[in-house]
Amino acid sequence: MSNKIKVAIAGYGNLGRGVESALAQNPDMQLVGVFSRRDPVTVELLNKDVPVYAMADIEQFQDQVDVMILCGGSRSDLPEQGPYLAQFFNTVDSFDTHAKVNEHFAALDAPAKKAGKLALLSVGWDPGLFSLNRMFGETILSEGETYTFWGKGLSQGHSDAVRRVEGVKSGVQYTLPSEAAIERVRAGEQPELTTREKHIRQCFIVLDEGADAETVRTSIVTMPDYFADYDTEVNFIDQATFEKDHSSMPHGGFVIRSGVTGSGNKQTIEYSLALGSNPEFTASVLVAYARAVHKLAGLGEVGAKTVLDVPPGLLSPKDPAQLRLDLL
Amino acid sequence: MSNKIKVAIAGYGNLGRGVESALAQNPDMQLVGVFSRRDPVTVELLNKDVPVYAMADIEQFQDQVDVMILCGGSRSDLPEQGPYLAQFFNTVDSFDTHAKVNEHFAALDAPAKKAGKLALLSVGWDPGLFSLNRMFGETILSEGETYTFWGKGLSQGHSDAVRRVEGVKSGVQYTLPSEAAIERVRAGEQPELTTREKHIRQCFIVLDEGADAETVRTSIVTMPDYFADYDTEVNFIDQATFEKDHSSMPHGGFVIRSGVTGSGNKQTIEYSLALGSNPEFTASVLVAYARAVHKLAGLGEVGAKTVLDVPPGLLSPKDPAQLRLDLL
Repeated sequence: MSNKIKVAIAGYGNLGRGVESALAQNPDMQLVGVFSRRDPVTVELLNKDVPVYAMADIEQFQDQVDVMILCGGSRSDLPEQGPYLAQFFNTVDSFDTHAKVNEHFAALDAPAKKAGKLALLSVGWDPGLFSLNRMFGETILSEGETYTFWGKGLSQGHSDAVRRVEGVKSGVQYTLPSEAAIERVRAGEQPELTTREKHIRQCFIVLDEGADAETVRTSIVTMPDYFADYDTEVNFIDQATFEKDHSSMPHGGFVIRSGVTGSGNKQTIEYSLALGSNPEFTASVLVAYARAVHKLAGLGEVGAKTVLDVPPGLLSPKDPAQLRLDLL
Repeated sequence: MSNKIKVAIAGYGNLGRGVESALAQNPDMQLVGVFSRRDPVTVELLNKDVPVYAMADIEQFQDQVDVMILCGGSRSDLPEQGPYLAQFFNTVDSFDTHAKVNEHFAALDAPAKKAGKLALLSVGWDPGLFSLNRMFGETILSEGETYTFWGKGLSQGHSDAVRRVEGVKSGVQYTLPSEAAIERVRAGEQPELTTREKHIRQCFIVLDEGADAETVRTSIVTMPDYFADYDTEVNFIDQATFEKDHSSMPHGGFVIRSGVTGSGNKQTIEYSLALGSNPEFTASVLVAYARAVHKLAGLGEVGAKTVLDVPPGLLSPKDPAQLRLDLL
């Protein structure tokens, strides 16, 4: 009998695969199974020794799993699977539809409380770590402004748009924070900035044989809604470079709180992420919080919770005295 | 009867004055008194309406204070005052003698538990916010390295050392993080760096009438223990510039976690502070955590705690549903 924390994954796409990888980096946790709506024999895990089960059978495993990590999408999977699975498991999800967070909270809270389970929602980096940093910023520096910048990150919708331009063979679009805007914020100016002023758009394009670069560039930078209102940079590269350098899913961003204390002293708190793989990083956050969920549930906590409710030290496999010795 | 959180300050130096300022920025809290070992009539607060009391009388106020913020030093004040005051008050301190944190924890835990009080220790930015970020970093990116850089910050000991050099009329020394070292860390190299390699030293000097700049510079940069092993920059300025630009107490630093996930994707988490006033920022952190202590005590928590034990949302004056709506 292992005393590792028994974790299972519901939904096996990019995020689920990231959770499988992250669990392998945490020796106090064990992946006991993956649940999928696909035919289990068609689902190939990184570790062939881990069993894949049909999502329809998931209820039967309620005594064999300490924490279920939900890796479906926020639009239709999580609103349905979350409340259902909260009846049987302690759960962690990455629900990120901002406008519906309190609705999702309520939908999880009732079944989780009834079942004596804990359901942690909206875990990841935004929402998640960025939310925590916005909270610390506005609370510690109560006179000030908070700024969130996203990127460098791959934008799926804008990449699709550039690929529809005539003459484009392959294309990808990244959203980057504007260095000029960040410098103004760091300098304590507390500027008013629109999303557009905070970001620039960067495209990498492989041209069709015989296509004219200047024509393609003009079509992109003048495209309404997508690019016309932004500073847009268009780079032309060959297909081999495209495949080598532009196939990963980078992302990241900045949360900056610029405030004033005392008789006008400027104070700046800056948090930033530079992520080589967005789904693998989000998965690593989910796994650390799955450990905390297991400990909180052990302390008798039930119902829906967010990262704002979790004592940070519970994320660590170390005991509290060791953490104090190592980190304070 | 106000329903504000009633806060008092024990010890009124730079930090105590910062706490007074920070409380004035938080309308849900009220400063009900300052306790000092000096004769109360000699202590001048920013707000003349707040009473100053003798430290010797502090026990008498145990029913009039929700949270006592201890603003004494870590060397001799806090080890003595902390355990004593934990018998009567919920307390927050900024104890920062790293090697003795668990000893101080134990010294607070027993009297606080016995009295049914809560004692939050080692609050501030390092230890404190930096500790939290080291914990998130090493836990979320379990394969990786954590780097702490300090500065730009005024170093009192090194400033004293330059002022002892013959020919120096006025002088100040700042420790700066090495940009070259930070760039290596951000690039995901995970280099091994000594404290010396991570920092450079920057001096601003006003010369005595007739003193030779080159002689003074050589005396500083070759000074054993203090400067000889570092990259040291020496700048000569006039007395007026010195008084205008070098009288505040800036500080700050970086905590960077550089890690790897999946099949080798680099991931970087960076947290940084650029502080116009070190004591005012530390005070702002103490005040936010004083609010959390009041709420945690209201939930029945007792004994010694650190920032690692506090659910982050409790720092905010907002209720949990509002926080979710605003930040997630």
